[in-house]
Order: sequence, then C-alpha cells, then structure tokens
Amino acid sequence: MAGIYEIIAKKRDGGVLTPQEISFFVKGVTDGSILDYQVSALLMAIFLRGLHKGEMVELTEAMLRSGETIDLSGIEGPKIDKHSTGGVGDKVSFIVAPWAAACGVKVPMLSGRSLGHTGGTLDKLESLPGTRVFLSSEEFKRTLSDAGLVICGQTDNLVPADRRLYALRDATATVNSLPLIVSSIMSKKLALGTDGIVLDVKTGSGAFLPELERSRALCEALVEVGHSSGRPTLGLITQMDQPLGSSVGNALEMVESVEALRGNFAQDLYEVCQAIAAAILVAGKRVSSFDQAKPLLDEALGSGRALERFRRMVELQGGNPRALDDLSLFPRSGESCVVKARQSGYIAAVDAFSVGMATIDLGAGRVRKEDGVDPGAGILLRRKVGEYVEAGEGWAELFASSRGRLEQAETRMVQSLRISPEPVKLSPRVLETVDSLGVRSWEKI
Amino acid sequence: MAGIYEIIAKKRDGGVLTPQEISFFVKGVTDGSILDYQVSALLMAIFLRGLHKGEMVELTEAMLRSGETIDLSGIEGPKIDKHSTGGVGDKVSFIVAPWAAACGVKVPMLSGRSLGHTGGTLDKLESLPGTRVFLSSEEFKRTLSDAGLVICGQTDNLVPADRRLYALRDATATVNSLPLIVSSIMSKKLALGTDGIVLDVKTGSGAFLPELERSRALCEALVEVGHSSGRPTLGLITQMDQPLGSSVGNALEMVESVEALRGNFAQDLYEVCQAIAAAILVAGKRVSSFDQAKPLLDEALGSGRALERFRRMVELQGGNPRALDDLSLFPRSGESCVVKARQSGYIAAVDAFSVGMATIDLGAGRVRKEDGVDPGAGILLRRKVGEYVEAGEGWAELFASSRGRLEQAETRMVQSLRISPEPVKLSPRVLETVDSLGVRSWEKI
Repeated sequence: MAGIYEIIAKKRDGGVLTPQEISFFVKGVTDGSILDYQVSALLMAIFLRGLHKGEMVELTEAMLRSGETIDLSGIEGPKIDKHSTGGVGDKVSFIVAPWAAACGVKVPMLSGRSLGHTGGTLDKLESLPGTRVFLSSEEFKRTLSDAGLVICGQTDNLVPADRRLYALRDATATVNSLPLIVSSIMSKKLALGTDGIVLDVKTGSGAFLPELERSRALCEALVEVGHSSGRPTLGLITQMDQPLGSSVGNALEMVESVEALRGNFAQDLYEVCQAIAAAILVAGKRVSSFDQAKPLLDEALGSGRALERFRRMVELQGGNPRALDDLSLFPRSGESCVVKARQSGYIAAVDAFSVGMATIDLGAGRVRKEDGVDPGAGILLRRKVGEYVEAGEGWAELFASSRGRLEQAETRMVQSLRISPEPVKLSPRVLETVDSLGVRSWEKI
Repeated sequence: MAGIYEIIAKKRDGGVLTPQEISFFVKGVTDGSILDYQVSALLMAIFLRGLHKGEMVELTEAMLRSGETIDLSGIEGPKIDKHSTGGVGDKVSFIVAPWAAACGVKVPMLSGRSLGHTGGTLDKLESLPGTRVFLSSEEFKRTLSDAGLVICGQTDNLVPADRRLYALRDATATVNSLPLIVSSIMSKKLALGTDGIVLDVKTGSGAFLPELERSRALCEALVEVGHSSGRPTLGLITQMDQPLGSSVGNALEMVESVEALRGNFAQDLYEVCQAIAAAILVAGKRVSSFDQAKPLLDEALGSGRALERFRRMVELQGGNPRALDDLSLFPRSGESCVVKARQSGYIAAVDAFSVGMATIDLGAGRVRKEDGVDPGAGILLRRKVGEYVEAGEGWAELFASSRGRLEQAETRMVQSLRISPEPVKLSPRVLETVDSLGVRSWEKI
C-alpha cells in the first residue's frame, strides 16, 4: 500500500489511482493525518492531470463515506434531490420543490449560501421573516414528510472531507477542476438517501463554468457519477447568460417565487421551472415522460396546491406564513433608483455576471464567506432580453440600504446592457439534457 | 501586483511569471507570509508546467537574495566553485580542489551530506579524525586564503528560501523538477562570491537523473542560469553507471583520495578528476585550454604540492594531518566479507545504484536525514568494468560494524554485477561539456 508521497507522485505522472489509494487519501484528509501541503500538492496534480471516470466515482464515494449519511427510508413516497450549480436570479428551488411535492414527489434539499456573483438559496429563504435554515435531523425528516419538501443547510457531519478539501482548493486556485467539482457536489448529494437526483447545470456568463462545452462535460460527469453510484440522475443544461426571471436579490427573489407559485411567471423562469419539475417527476417515477408530467404540473399550480406545499414548509421551518399572502411583509431596502436606457432598441443582452456583481455592490451578495447580506437589497428587471425599450425608459430598479451602494451598481447595470436596432431572436433557456435513466421522451424537453 | 492566489492560477494555466511575481513568492516563502499549502500547490504547478529560462534565472536570483552572501573579494587570486550533482564513489572534490589550488586557483566549496544511494562530501570529510565541517565565516576565509581550498557545510543564513522550499518539495513529490533543481543549486552557488563555477552533472543509474537527455538538459540549464547571472560557468556530464574509482564509503573514499593525491589513481577516477581540475583552471583563467592545463596539473601532482594543499586544509579544519601519512588512522569497520564472481568472464556492468543501496545496507549511507553514518563501513572494488574475473575470485570487499549488515549488501552486490564472455569496450566517463565561456579547446575534453 502506497503512502501519500507515492500517491502524489503517481498522479503527478498521470497515473490512475487505485480505489485503495483514493480511500487512503480521503481518510487522511478527514482525520488530518495527511498534511495540508501534501493535500494541496495532490489537488494541483489532479487539477492538471485530471481523474478518469472510475477515479472520480471512487473519490466521490470515499468522500461520501467520510461522514454521516441521512437515511430517508422511513419517509413514504419517492424522494428526489434537485441541485443547481448556481446562477444569478436562480430562485428555481423555491418553485420546483413545492410544485413537484404537490404532484407526489418529495423534494429534500441541502442548500448553500451566496458567494461571489451567484446567489445562495439559504440567504434567500432567511429573508422570509422567522425562517430557520438549520434543522435537526428530526425536524428535517418531519418537514419533508409533512410538507413534501424541505430546504435547509447541511450539517458539519455530512462529508467532512469536502470541507477541508474545499478550503484548500479555495486557497490554491484548484476550485475549477471538473473531477474535484463533481466529487464535491455528488458526495453531498449521495449522502442524502434519495431515490434520484436532478441536476441543473448553468452555462453562460453568470454560471461558474461559462463555456457550454465545459458545462456539458460537467453535466455528463455528474450524471455519470450519480449513475455509477446506483442513483438515477437526470441533468439539464440551462442558459445563464442573463439573470433568470425578473428579480435578483434575497427577498426580491422570494417574492417572485411566491408570485410564480400563484401562476405569475416570467417566461424564461417558467420554461426552466417546468422542465426541472417535470424532470423531478420523471426521476421519481411519478410519470414516464415530460408529456405525462405537463398536465399534472398544470393542475398542481392552478389549484394552488403547489403554493400550499410551500406554505406548509415555511410554517414548519418557523417562517411567517402570512408573508405569502401579504408580500409587503418581505423586507425591501429603503434606497432605490431606476436604471434608464440610453438609446431605443431591442435588448440584446443583460450580462448575468455584471448583474451578479451589481448585486454584491448593493449589499445583497458576499465577497467573502464571513460577510453578511442585506435581505432587502437587489434588482428588479422591468425588461428582459428580446423586449423593446425607449431611450430614457427605466428598464431596471435597484434597492439598497444606502445611496452610496446604488452608484457603482448602476454603472455596472449600464455596462451589462446591450441594445440592438433589430429585433432579437430568443434562444431557449433549457439547452440540453443528460439522462442516465433511458427515458426516451426525456429528449423532448 | 497579483497575490499568491493569482500567481498559482497563472502558473497552473501555463503562464509566464513576471520578476515581480517571482520575487513576491520567494519573499513570502522566506518570511512565512505564504502558507505551506499555497507554496506546495505552486511547486506542483511549476513541476507540471515548467519555467521558462527567464523565470528560472529570476527564481534563482530571488532565492539568492533571500539570505546572506559570502563576500570573497578580500581573498587574492581566482576563486572557482565546483559542484557535483552526486553519485556513488564520487570523491572528486577531495582530489580536484587541492589539485587546482596547487595550480593557483582557489576552490571554496559548500557541500552536503549523504542521502539515499548517493554519498555526501561532509560525511566523508568527517571520517578523517578530528575534522570540523562547520566553520565560522572567518575560519572559512582563513582556510581558503591559506590552504587554497576549503570544504565545509553551509550555514542556515545562506538561501533560507531554499530550505523551506526543499522541505516542501521533499514531502510533495516535487523534487525532480528541472527548474526547481536548477534554482536550488544555483542560488547556493551564486551566494558564494566566486569568479566562476564548474559543474559535474552525473548521468547513469547512480545519478539522480539517470537518463542522459535529462542530465544534459539539467547541465545546460545550470550553465545558462550561471551565465545569465553573470557568473562564468562550465559544465561536464560524467558517466555514473558504475561507481567512480575503487571505493564507496566514507573513510574508504578518503583513503582513495589521499592515494590519488599521491598519484595512485583508478583510471576512471583519473579521467574525471583531470577533466574537472582542468575545467577549474580554465574557469579561473589560469590557462585558456585543456592542453595548457595538463602540464600544470602533472607537475602539481608529481611534486606533491596537491597533497600538501589538502594537508594544510585538514590542519586548518582541525583534522589529524598524520592520517594522510598513516592511512591506518582512518577508521575501518570490523566485520568484512569478500564478494565472489559466480562465473568467469569480463565485467560488463557494476550497477552504481545497487552499489549505492548496498552502501546504505552496510551503514555507510542514510535513508533519512536524521540517520547517522558509520565512517568505517563501505565497499572496496577489486575489479572494475572491463576487467576479467575468474569464477570464485573475490571482486569486491565489504566492511560493516556487524555481520548482519553484510548479508543484504552482499546480495545486492551479486545482483549489481554483469559478466560477459566477450571483452567489453570501455566508454569514456566524461561524456560531454557545456560551456558558457566560449573556450574553443574546451571541446577537446
């Protein structure tokens, strides 16, 4: 059995690590017996040499074994996890989880916080007054069982190896390695005892892997690892070149989510949410095709049962359910300004990355993990890509707790906008799907 | 100015680091402001992405600036440093330094200890009873000025960045990176204020880079960096497929060195020492060609002046000079055995690496830095490559302090030997030279 030195040297030279070597590494990362500088040297070697498919599966499973897992077998019905790689204005979780729950598939989600230009589900949920995002194992299961969904943060006992690896990757420029991303995401997904996983891999300027080719490679690898670990997995690649929907910011996005659950969607948000909700129903074996999912989803939304599921979750997690009826109970920062178009024409682009950075300027996002966020800050988009604006017309509205924060954000918003004299052809937001289930009609989505 | 994160990311992606970035890195390594795991991630990125020539020169000079330098300008005459990349039976320093000193070129040498299969100059010198290998700056200069040579260990103040980098490389499988080797060696060479440097790069099984192509690349890079830093540098590539000379082990090699200074050389040892001594005279501008060096060297050896220089150095470093007249004063371990040939024929190979490992078995070498060495242990080679042996004839003699140590060493020695029924053609030990001086006749060596 090789020691860590030999393992580093082997990967450095492009060798394929054995399951024993990968287990040894992850065990040493977890119990601290492998030193930081040896871990980071191996991470850089993995970044530059890559991992084969089998190594990636082994790494994921070894990381999964590094901590506790959450057994959901006592909870009735199919349970499907949904994960997004993160974007700008991505409030999909709050919509699809209750939507799918209303159709009989339970959706347990362990989510994260905002960092950099992308938003964080937990920060958004906390903007709903009173809501607790850290639950005991019992609360987690009770909420899931009763509401049909639960959205909360993960505990320290889940995949402890990932916390140490991620901290080192973050300090050594080894975050953006496909196999390291895949093992980090999938080990946490697999630690939750679901019947399947639906992955929303974002692509475009607001995604953390902007190039479609890399997004596709990531999606395929995620699905492959899920499948190899015995977990049915469906992946969607969705466009994140402009923000999703009409709002960016914590409470603003919650308000938009409640509106959506009432049936009032921005077109692009509807397209993405419908596809992902359908994918959850397919993965949960409630239906065998997208076509079958559609009427179920229409009924669940139209009847108000989807909103009802969400309300139940909010109640069980300590939030104020009245806020779902009176949206003015959500916080909104006191200072605001309107961003005006400087010329008339069709909106050709609203760069998602720039909008995400403007959100940080406004106080709604984080530069460092330690930073707090302003729940009431953010951006409302009155116009989206493809729509016509008059010169001088306000196309976006910014909210912050001080006027100083508005200025830089406004500059970024102006820079994010591209106007075309010609009408702009809209491209679909759901670009591709990756399937490990063999569902033929899936291809239609 | 980029921070360490950006520097790691740049090299990770194959970028070329600026002098400012390299300085920032080395400064952070020296003052501890860059963390171990960031240093090791960059070392792995350098290992896999390499450094351009300019980066290698900058790294060397930044490392040089990390500590003190030794000013030798107060000492009269040309001063040339000689460095070997290490081998088995490599006692060249003890012979060429006094030899060149006797011809008017002073040779100051900062040497190291044995590690792994290669021997260490300091361990060998300490086997000479009483000799001190750590000198104050004053003692160093006085010995050099008076004896014309000095051989001792380097102090902690010389290139402190290299100590931290080397310790991390040693733990993270990043030792064998050409640019890291070059900057480590050359920063220490440049810290010593000499007028030129002669490099003996070993190649073959007993060298740390066995392949000729890599040895050549290393030699060229070393000479290039010396030259770019304004230090005339000559490199020789010498064969290290069998041990050099007739002995391996600390005191045994000292005895062979004294014999050589009396004019009694094994043929291969003579060939290498003559070439290196001539290179020192050329680099020191005592002569302008190898042909001119030869009569000077012959006279210095024949007259006994070379041995006289060595005797003076030993006296000044506290050693017992009587040992040079009475070689029985050198220690020799009490247990011994003779290794016999199992068949008759010509010796085709005595594998240097295996012999080096046998030396460790005998107690004369180190596996770990903390280990001690037995000064009296080692190997005498009665027959060398090309010579004829009869079946049953003893071709090597082993010495150790206990019989148990002899056994494994004997097995290794048997395995190191290859016998051919046909006479074996001897290849030269000095294979190539690399020149930054433009000395045409140098090519003749």
